[in-house]
Amino acid sequence: MVAQLERSVGGYAQTMQQNDVRTFTFDRLPLRYGHSFGPITLAYETWGTLNAEGDNAILITHALTGSAHAHDPQHPDDARAAWWNPLIGPGRPIDTARYFVICSNVLGSCYGSTGPSSLDPDTGRAYGTRFPILAIHDMVEAQRILLDHLGVKHLALVAGGSIGGQQALEWAVTYPELLERVVVVAATAAVTAQAVAFSEVERQAIMADSHWQTGDYLPGEGPETGLAIARMLAMITYQSEEAMEQRFGRHAARRPIVPAPSWSLDPARRFDVENYLYYQGEALAQRFDANSYLYISRAMDLFDVSEGYSSLESALRRIRSKALFVGIRSDFLFPAAHVRWLADKVRSLGGNATYVEIESPHGHDAFLKEWQQLAAALRRI
Amino acid sequence: MVAQLERSVGGYAQTMQQNDVRTFTFDRLPLRYGHSFGPITLAYETWGTLNAEGDNAILITHALTGSAHAHDPQHPDDARAAWWNPLIGPGRPIDTARYFVICSNVLGSCYGSTGPSSLDPDTGRAYGTRFPILAIHDMVEAQRILLDHLGVKHLALVAGGSIGGQQALEWAVTYPELLERVVVVAATAAVTAQAVAFSEVERQAIMADSHWQTGDYLPGEGPETGLAIARMLAMITYQSEEAMEQRFGRHAARRPIVPAPSWSLDPARRFDVENYLYYQGEALAQRFDANSYLYISRAMDLFDVSEGYSSLESALRRIRSKALFVGIRSDFLFPAAHVRWLADKVRSLGGNATYVEIESPHGHDAFLKEWQQLAAALRRI
Repeated sequence: MVAQLERSVGGYAQTMQQNDVRTFTFDRLPLRYGHSFGPITLAYETWGTLNAEGDNAILITHALTGSAHAHDPQHPDDARAAWWNPLIGPGRPIDTARYFVICSNVLGSCYGSTGPSSLDPDTGRAYGTRFPILAIHDMVEAQRILLDHLGVKHLALVAGGSIGGQQALEWAVTYPELLERVVVVAATAAVTAQAVAFSEVERQAIMADSHWQTGDYLPGEGPETGLAIARMLAMITYQSEEAMEQRFGRHAARRPIVPAPSWSLDPARRFDVENYLYYQGEALAQRFDANSYLYISRAMDLFDVSEGYSSLESALRRIRSKALFVGIRSDFLFPAAHVRWLADKVRSLGGNATYVEIESPHGHDAFLKEWQQLAAALRRI
Repeated sequence: MVAQLERSVGGYAQTMQQNDVRTFTFDRLPLRYGHSFGPITLAYETWGTLNAEGDNAILITHALTGSAHAHDPQHPDDARAAWWNPLIGPGRPIDTARYFVICSNVLGSCYGSTGPSSLDPDTGRAYGTRFPILAIHDMVEAQRILLDHLGVKHLALVAGGSIGGQQALEWAVTYPELLERVVVVAATAAVTAQAVAFSEVERQAIMADSHWQTGDYLPGEGPETGLAIARMLAMITYQSEEAMEQRFGRHAARRPIVPAPSWSLDPARRFDVENYLYYQGEALAQRFDANSYLYISRAMDLFDVSEGYSSLESALRRIRSKALFVGIRSDFLFPAAHVRWLADKVRSLGGNATYVEIESPHGHDAFLKEWQQLAAALRRI
């Protein structure tokens, strides 16, 4: 029996099915930037059944503030019930009737996997900033250990968007023999200087909040204001000038009026876009851990698929999977031109790579919105 | 005799000529958003000589953190000595041999004009957030009173970029009979939702700093961290993805290493773009008043040239000046397409409007960088 309840995973509230989330713990993982770290717990969900050969598995990889809850079989038609819900299910592009679909909360997050808010067994206190700097590569290595544990021998597909797309790409380069297909949505070989710059402003806003306490805040007493401001900025980078103009223009705020994270200089003339950003900031501050935000956004900045290889070409030449790269026309965080360039590069190196561009005004966020185009793209591979 | 010295104007250090800045004080000004406010002091500089008819004057209008120091006749060939220095001087596009050129620090700023850091004569304390919300229109009205005082009867030209471009446009609509020509650089009829959003994130970062003290900080004890973070974000919006990629790419930080405004999560892997933003943030925090930043950036958001008229068309139809609109190809704060649209609109309403686009990767900042193209544009009008 499945009971719907408001559940706290790692201290962060999420609405999910009681029996959905499982965990797996292993001892240690050597990390890219020099630490060997453990123990590590990964929270994960699965849908569908693994076959006897262990080769019908699909791994779905999530973005910065996402969780393992990519699909909700109890509410399959509610796009908000799980983050890639419309794409997953029996007969859907990611077909749970044929495949064993796995999504795990990334190392460093706060939705059940080990992250900065987890207790360090050596001290009994949360790691805080004693948590090691993570690479996307480390998240992938942790996922691989989980897949071994689950009996997965071969992956029919790895797919994800944004930081999840970075993971998918890293999978294809690190374990070319394990993947049949890979779908990289709205991600590139490495982010731009501008993207690093936005991320660092977000992190500075968090760490400047006196409640951050150099990372040693208590649960529920974290830098909510700083995290809300970081999210406000991130939401701008996930959208586009065009989409914000269409949606908000210069309209005055509509009800309900949301308190600003800090203060309101000019409450008499609040723009709708401001009210919207306050709402989004507050919502994330209530559901996500500030330190996880710092570590995962840093992993996004640091990701460079060529790291560990002599060149970008030698990294990309390793890819054996059939690869689909999906860019979004209006994305300025991961520009479509860069996604297309990556696909062309893989193909020029002899890889089987296709590029599809999502025609959308919604910017980076389109990878969580443009269901028809995403479904069509996934069916191409 | 002119002595070069480090001078403090309104508590904010600026290198300028001792005898350059004059001030003028008047009693009161009715403001757009309902207050009558005063006394008001404007700091200003002038170059060249007003003729007997009072009709050879040019007004230069500055941007968010600018000052009256648009030109430095002692260092005419140093582009950094004054903010539009290469464009102003004898024989230059803004010709001080023929014209009487005026630049005044805007109402609300901290470089000698009345702003939130000025002392309220009624209380003896700095205004802080008791300072009234300002409109670009109010800045223009204050400038007009200054020009009357100086004996200016007619303006041969009003020119400025960014918020200075908003002022120039407001001048052309408010006082059509007074202006012969107007040059609006990198400014539009009203900013986009995205621009308001970025501005509000910047203001929240300032106001979230506990040193802000709801605006009642003492001189030298202000929200330097918050202001530095605001400036970091602003610097991203003043540049472009393309320019940042060219300049910084994913290079590691070069010396000197600058302290982060708050904390450094990952000091071992600092990107050059991060170090650059820290430097720019710190530099502004040392030279500018946080409350002035809040008020002037808000005026930028609120500016809508149609305000006070029945429609945008009825506002723009008032323009009698020969008008030059200058867009910047890579500007995403004031998109070139919007500047072009505005020029087309004025022309379609019977105005004498020309559009020139600056071909530059430098984004909004090009109005302070692309001297040759700016000079060529100014010579066209």
